[in-house]
Amino acid sequence: MHPNVDTQQRILDSARELIYSRSYADVGVADICEHAGVKKGSFYHFFPSKRDLTLAVLDAYYLEIKTNLVAQAFAKDIPPLARLNRFGQLAYMFQKQALKDTGRVLGCPFGNLASEMATQDEPIRAKVEQIFSNLQGGIRLVLREAMAAGEVQDIDVEATAQAMLAYFEGVMLLAKSNNDVEIMGQLFPAMAQIRISPR
Amino acid sequence: MHPNVDTQQRILDSARELIYSRSYADVGVADICEHAGVKKGSFYHFFPSKRDLTLAVLDAYYLEIKTNLVAQAFAKDIPPLARLNRFGQLAYMFQKQALKDTGRVLGCPFGNLASEMATQDEPIRAKVEQIFSNLQGGIRLVLREAMAAGEVQDIDVEATAQAMLAYFEGVMLLAKSNNDVEIMGQLFPAMAQIRISPR
Repeated sequence: MHPNVDTQQRILDSARELIYSRSYADVGVADICEHAGVKKGSFYHFFPSKRDLTLAVLDAYYLEIKTNLVAQAFAKDIPPLARLNRFGQLAYMFQKQALKDTGRVLGCPFGNLASEMATQDEPIRAKVEQIFSNLQGGIRLVLREAMAAGEVQDIDVEATAQAMLAYFEGVMLLAKSNNDVEIMGQLFPAMAQIRISPR
Repeated sequence: MHPNVDTQQRILDSARELIYSRSYADVGVADICEHAGVKKGSFYHFFPSKRDLTLAVLDAYYLEIKTNLVAQAFAKDIPPLARLNRFGQLAYMFQKQALKDTGRVLGCPFGNLASEMATQDEPIRAKVEQIFSNLQGGIRLVLREAMAAGEVQDIDVEATAQAMLAYFEGVMLLAKSNNDVEIMGQLFPAMAQIRISPR
């Protein structure tokens, strides 16, 4: 691998791990560089600021979740509403693994950053809004198929998709605040049953 | 008013406002003292640390929300499930006012602190867990009355109360991340319809 690409990737991976397990504010550029084993000068060669790195971290998370969670959960081998339940189950298994690795339920990386930074950093807020909109779009497609298959009737598809995403985020937040991953196992099955009626 | 009580209260009010509109990490003791118009020495006379002040801030928030939101929403002048809808409506109105005052949807003060601090500060995490447990207890009482009144049948009351709290928190988080208070108006009506079946 080209050494520069490797350095950039190590900074990104390091920031990802540290910010997810702690918070945006608690992790400084020096922490990220030390954890990545790179010099501070290298950091600013690749990223103008911690914020820019964090935007790249959010993109990297989204790509991973899209590939390893959304694509697997929403695969068309099972009926549409069952895919939403599979989404919850996979997220639960992922958090269980994180708990095993770190001793903590870490919550949702997008929800965490939105919650901490939305009122303070507009580019970070806007990036999370975009990611949430993409996730909502994925749920919307599943709901459209559920309607076509007769699994659901007479719903506001857009609002229902957003309500399901809100529930997902809230369950992740409660699991984190209680440091109890089993909350996810118990509460996620209700996600696919949420309905918002057309106005 | 006794001057010391006044100083302590001003420190508390100042921390409350600053942490809620920004974040725990972004607000230092110096910021709190400057905003409150008190000397740094006074701060440590009343609070051993920013964490201790934050625990007091969480208590103050909880007391206010219990008095001005929960007590009003859950008053017994209307049927039980309608009280849950009133809870959502009052929270929506409160956030609308905060948006008018600050230009930002600030989210839930408990969810915000849990999301930022749960993995980093055990006393703050435990305090938010306790507050969430109290709020869940309030919803549980409403659900018990709803069962007695025949409004709901065959649910796991404890898990359903927690699911409703999770949904509430998730809607608050999405409203904050999108800086869009109308999400609350649109999504909260689905809260009272969430059900978790007995295992």
